[in-house]
Amino acid sequence: MMNDAVPYGAIEAGGTKWVCAVGTGPDDIRALQRFPTTTPEETLRSCIEFFQRQGELQAIGIGSFGPVDLNHNSPTYGFITSTPKVGWRNADVVGAVKSALDLPVALDTDVNAALLGEVKWGAAQGLTDAIYLTVGTGFGGGAMVNGQLAHGLLHPEFGHMFVPRDPSDTFGGACSFHGDCLEGLVSGPAIEARWKAPGESLPPDHPAWRLEAGYLAYALVNMTCLLSPQRIIVGGGVGSNPALLTLVRERFQSILNGYLQADALLGGIEEYIVSPGLEGRSGILGAIALAQAEFGSVDK
Amino acid sequence: MMNDAVPYGAIEAGGTKWVCAVGTGPDDIRALQRFPTTTPEETLRSCIEFFQRQGELQAIGIGSFGPVDLNHNSPTYGFITSTPKVGWRNADVVGAVKSALDLPVALDTDVNAALLGEVKWGAAQGLTDAIYLTVGTGFGGGAMVNGQLAHGLLHPEFGHMFVPRDPSDTFGGACSFHGDCLEGLVSGPAIEARWKAPGESLPPDHPAWRLEAGYLAYALVNMTCLLSPQRIIVGGGVGSNPALLTLVRERFQSILNGYLQADALLGGIEEYIVSPGLEGRSGILGAIALAQAEFGSVDK
Ligand SMILES: Nc1ncnc2c1ncn2[C@@H]1O[C@H](COP(=O)(O)OP(=O)(O)O)[C@@H](O)[C@H]1O
Ligand SMILES: Nc1ncnc2c1ncn2[C@@H]1O[C@H](COP(=O)(O)OP(=O)(O)O)[C@@H](O)[C@H]1O
Ligand SMILES: [Zn+2]
Ligand SMILES: [Zn+2]
Repeated sequence: MMNDAVPYGAIEAGGTKWVCAVGTGPDDIRALQRFPTTTPEETLRSCIEFFQRQGELQAIGIGSFGPVDLNHNSPTYGFITSTPKVGWRNADVVGAVKSALDLPVALDTDVNAALLGEVKWGAAQGLTDAIYLTVGTGFGGGAMVNGQLAHGLLHPEFGHMFVPRDPSDTFGGACSFHGDCLEGLVSGPAIEARWKAPGESLPPDHPAWRLEAGYLAYALVNMTCLLSPQRIIVGGGVGSNPALLTLVRERFQSILNGYLQADALLGGIEEYIVSPGLEGRSGILGAIALAQAEFGSVDK
Repeated sequence: MMNDAVPYGAIEAGGTKWVCAVGTGPDDIRALQRFPTTTPEETLRSCIEFFQRQGELQAIGIGSFGPVDLNHNSPTYGFITSTPKVGWRNADVVGAVKSALDLPVALDTDVNAALLGEVKWGAAQGLTDAIYLTVGTGFGGGAMVNGQLAHGLLHPEFGHMFVPRDPSDTFGGACSFHGDCLEGLVSGPAIEARWKAPGESLPPDHPAWRLEAGYLAYALVNMTCLLSPQRIIVGGGVGSNPALLTLVRERFQSILNGYLQADALLGGIEEYIVSPGLEGRSGILGAIALAQAEFGSVDK
């Protein structure tokens, strides 16, 4: 580790908390602090003051909750856009950080940042085509295709795809826009609304997990059909439940029914659908990786 | 048009016919011939003899039905792999063409080739993130992300994703692997099996179209959520039915319910979900574009 290298600043901007850090990688985090997500003014000021207390930085990387405007040609580039989160609609995150710190700023979605961290240092090292999912308060996904993070028209919004309903499940769905889109069926709040208890309190043999795994398996099949990733990483609070991934792998294979003849999807399934390698740090390390990928002169 | 430029050879390799052509683009096709898809030996020999009758060629581009092995490091690179099509399993298409003609050969899926053709000369010009679909005997999709065609582990297989069933539709689905995957619900043979009449014979006010548009709309919503394309091109025999796209656009917007705030998905929807620009020639022109993209010294 090059502990004398000028480090990067990193922000993992979430809906409930922001994490700020300074460092160059997993073994070189020199400072780290968490701030609750309050108003944009207060939260951004706390972050900026944190960085001002640090020494020299090369650049800042931000992985942010969304939707965010990632189009460099747009007048609202770097803004959080149509979020339902009170006060954050049209918050100029990149502008605030850039002007206060006078540093280059790289921005991507929280899940794209986490994916980049996993590609660089975690469970997707060496891959060019991979997906990172977070199943928690919402459902988010980031994708890398041919070694580049995918953005497109806006940026992917994996959570709002649709999968077949389980006939035994009459829950109407928790998404305020769509009812029973994927997020509306499988997020932590959806589990809690359906079973009247939060996911972390449900035992491994609770029927919630068979249902959850079935929906997630359809979602992962759709990802495999549309993007053909080399690996899918499943993170987030719900995603970390130990009862889940084994069931998801079984259902995934049973749905695909041998149609796609690739080792990774047959005998290699345990290496295809995996947990994050960076254990809760994918997002903040990914923000470092973002800054490094865009502004690092040499790959360290 | 540079009619004195050394042209490319192009093959659109389909399950029922192969199209071979020589040229440099839409306004410069110098020869074109169709061959029925019989055995690999016979079909490939016909193509090779066609090209041997032509003058000098720079390279050959092939857009092929699949699944095909696109991994350059694989011992079966350039083979058609696990197809159910009799005789074609493990057919070495690239090897046969390359060794007989002693030319560089570029290969991709039929739908990726068609997409590349549409990006270069058709309905997706200037875009970096786009999708090309064919809804016909099967359902296929090709994707471009950040200006590059997507392949990943194998290559996308859009047709086998899953969408919610319409409660009014009790048809079991026509996919031999999955029953009611997307292809099993919306392909030409699925329409014919459900309504006991081929799609081209069903009038615009037939209930088939509302149902078909509903499934396609869910599929396009899933594509938008996972890939965030700037445009989706809908080709193929079924896709060309004039009753269809207007209904698909309506249902697509009603499912998304304003969640994604992009002009293209709101007022601009007619430019977001479109028909091919190359009218039945996307595939063969795409094969020219493939050869040109991989082996063209200068972009012509
Ligand atoms: N072990 C667990 N099993 C199932 N659900 C969990 C578990 N841990 C947390 N959750 C649920 O995950 C959600 C929080 O997700 P998390 O990823 O921790 O945060 P966020 O998505 O807000 O960043 C809550 O709805 C919580 O009930
Ligand atoms: N105008 C039409 N409306 C609906 N279905 C059609 C139409 N034209 C062709 N089809 C159906 O499309 C299928 C053939 O698709 P096509 O794209 O022409 O060929 P392929 O997919 O084999 O390359 C057939 O099942 C046919 O019934
Ligand atoms: Zn939704
Ligand atoms: Zn299928």
